[in-house]
Amino acid sequence: MFENTGRTELSQLGEFGLIKHLTENIIIQHPSTLKGVGDDAAVIEQSGKVTLLSTDMLVEGVHFDLTYVPLKHLGYKSIAVNVSDICAMNGVAKQVTVSMAVSNRFSTEALEELYSGMLMACDNYKVDLVGGDTTSSLSGLVISITVLGEAEKNEVVYRSGAQEKDLLVVTGDLGGAYMGLQILEREKAVFKENPNAQPDLEGNDYVLERQLKPEARIDIRDILKHLDIKPTSMIDVSDGLASEILHICNQSNVGCNLYEDKIPMDSMTVNRAHDFKLDPTVCALSGGEDYELLFTINQKDFDKVKNHPDFTIIGHMTDKASGANLVTRSGNAIPLTAQGWDAFINKN
Amino acid sequence: MFENTGRTELSQLGEFGLIKHLTENIIIQHPSTLKGVGDDAAVIEQSGKVTLLSTDMLVEGVHFDLTYVPLKHLGYKSIAVNVSDICAMNGVAKQVTVSMAVSNRFSTEALEELYSGMLMACDNYKVDLVGGDTTSSLSGLVISITVLGEAEKNEVVYRSGAQEKDLLVVTGDLGGAYMGLQILEREKAVFKENPNAQPDLEGNDYVLERQLKPEARIDIRDILKHLDIKPTSMIDVSDGLASEILHICNQSNVGCNLYEDKIPMDSMTVNRAHDFKLDPTVCALSGGEDYELLFTINQKDFDKVKNHPDFTIIGHMTDKASGANLVTRSGNAIPLTAQGWDAFINKN
Repeated sequence: MFENTGRTELSQLGEFGLIKHLTENIIIQHPSTLKGVGDDAAVIEQSGKVTLLSTDMLVEGVHFDLTYVPLKHLGYKSIAVNVSDICAMNGVAKQVTVSMAVSNRFSTEALEELYSGMLMACDNYKVDLVGGDTTSSLSGLVISITVLGEAEKNEVVYRSGAQEKDLLVVTGDLGGAYMGLQILEREKAVFKENPNAQPDLEGNDYVLERQLKPEARIDIRDILKHLDIKPTSMIDVSDGLASEILHICNQSNVGCNLYEDKIPMDSMTVNRAHDFKLDPTVCALSGGEDYELLFTINQKDFDKVKNHPDFTIIGHMTDKASGANLVTRSGNAIPLTAQGWDAFINKN
Repeated sequence: MFENTGRTELSQLGEFGLIKHLTENIIIQHPSTLKGVGDDAAVIEQSGKVTLLSTDMLVEGVHFDLTYVPLKHLGYKSIAVNVSDICAMNGVAKQVTVSMAVSNRFSTEALEELYSGMLMACDNYKVDLVGGDTTSSLSGLVISITVLGEAEKNEVVYRSGAQEKDLLVVTGDLGGAYMGLQILEREKAVFKENPNAQPDLEGNDYVLERQLKPEARIDIRDILKHLDIKPTSMIDVSDGLASEILHICNQSNVGCNLYEDKIPMDSMTVNRAHDFKLDPTVCALSGGEDYELLFTINQKDFDKVKNHPDFTIIGHMTDKASGANLVTRSGNAIPLTAQGWDAFINKN
C-alpha cells in the first residue's frame, strides 16, 4: 500500500541523509535526556551520573558474509563494535542486550557459536548481557545490539567540542581491517572458481584479525585519565577516518588539516595495499572498521601525547571556512569527503 | 561452514527453550545488574534508582504483514509493545532507540510513515527517541527497539514474587487483538482471490484497533499507587494469557487456578470468535498481543480491586504441586500449556 505514494528512493538521501531526515522531527521531552540522536551514544542523566546508550544493527549480506566470517568471531565483533561506541563517549560499557532474527538455515549449534563469541567479548570487556529477543526470520541473520554505559556527567566527550587549533589524535593504526577484508574477499572469489582450493591466508594474521576480531579501545579512557587529558571531542573509527573527521568538523563547526604522512599504518597493511594496487592512504581514510578512537585535544596537552606509544598526532583543527582537508605528502590540500573512496581513487 | 557441525534444529527447542539454552552460561559481573535475562526488562541499579531495559525485534513476514498493516500503525505498535514491557515492571518508560534494516523496496516516504507512527507513540507515552541505526537489508523490514525505563528500586515488580493464595488480576479485556488479526487475515485471503473486492471491516473497529494500534497500559502504575497496592508479580500479555500465567508460575514457584468464566472479554471479541467458529476462551488464552497487564496481589488487597473498572480478578495462586490449571465453566480443571492453542482446540 505504501508504494503508491510519492516515492523518493532511499539511495537518493544516503544513510546519513536518511537518518537526518527521519530524526529532524524528534522532540526531546525529558530534561534528563542530555543528548539524543547524533553522537556515538545517547546521554541520559540520573543523579549526577549519566547513562550512555548506543545501538547497532548487523545484517547478513550487508555487514557480514558468513562464507568467511566464523560465527564466533561475528559474535565477538558485534559486541566489540557496540562497546567501542561507549568508549567514544569516554564512558565505561556495563550492559548489553542482544536481539537476533534467525532463519531455519541456522542450527542451534550455529547460534551457540555466535553466542559464545558474544559471551567471550562480554567477559573481556566486563559487560553484562542482560536481555534480548530471539526470533525467526524468513531469510538470513540480523543481529541488533544495544549497549549501556556509565560516566560522570563531566567526563562525557561529545563529537561537538573540538576547537580551532586543537590537535587531532588517533589511537593505534588504521586501514588494517579493510586490508583484511580484501584478502578474505579474494580467497572467497578463488574458492568460488575452484572449491578445492585452500585459502591462502598465511602471513596476514594481523590484518585478518583487525577485520575478524577487532577490539574496542576500553584502555584509552584510563590512559587519558592518567595523563590528565580530557579530549575536547571524540568518535570511534567505524566508517573510515575521513568520515569520522567530517563528523567532528560538522558537529564542532571547525575545519581540519589532516597530514597524510602522519596517518599511522602497520607495515603489513601498507604492503598488502601495494599488493592489491591500492593506495594505503585511501584504505585508512575510507576503509573503516578499525574501531580506533579519534579525538581532539587542546595544544597545551601536546607534550603528554607526543611520544606516547598509543597515540599519533595526525593533524590540527582550523576555522570552519578552511574546510576539512587532507594535506598530501607533496603538500597539496585536498578536501576530505565522506565518500572518499571513489573520489580519491580517481585523484590518485 | 557452520552447517557441518552436529545439528539441532531450532524448532526442536522452541523460542523459550532456545533462549534458555543460549543464556544459561551468562555470568553477571556488575553488582548493579540486579536482574538480567528472564523478566520483561533488565534492572540496573544506579544511585538508589533503577534503570529498566527491554528490547524487541519485529520481522516482516513473521511479526507483521504489510499487506494489511499500515506502516504508521506498525510504527506506533512497535513503540507501544516495548513501553508495555516497562509497564510490566511497574516502571516509567523514558527513552527508546530504534534500529531498522530496510530493503530498497521501501521508499523514503514509506519510512517517514513508519517513523511518524513511532513519534506519535513517543509523544503519547512521553518517551524520548534517543538513537538507533538505519541500515539496508537484502529483503524485507526488520525493526529492533530498545526501551529504557525508570523506577525506584523498591517499586519494581518482577515475575517471580507471586505467593500461594495471591489473587490473579488482569487489566482490560483479552482476545480482541487475536480476533482483529483473524478478520485481517480473512480479508487478505478474499483480496488474493479477487483483487477488486473491497475489504469488509465494518463493525469491527474495536478488535481491529486492538490488533493494529494496541496501547501500553502506562496508566496502571498510577492507579495501583493510588490504591496503595504493590503487585507481588507482574507481566504483560504479549503471547497469550496461558503463556504469561505459566511464566509467573514457573518463576514464582507456585501453581494457579484460572477461572474460565472470569476471563474478561469484549462482546465483539466473543461474537467474532463465534462467527469464526473459535472458542473465545482459546482466543484469550493463546491469542496474545493484547498488551494488558497480568499481576498478582495479596488477598488483603481484595476490596481495593474487586469493583474497580480497570481490573478483573480471574483466579488465585496455589501451591506448585497443584500446577497451573484452567477451571472450566463446567468445573473441570485442565492443565494450562504455553502451546495451548492446539491442545485446547482438541479438547473443546
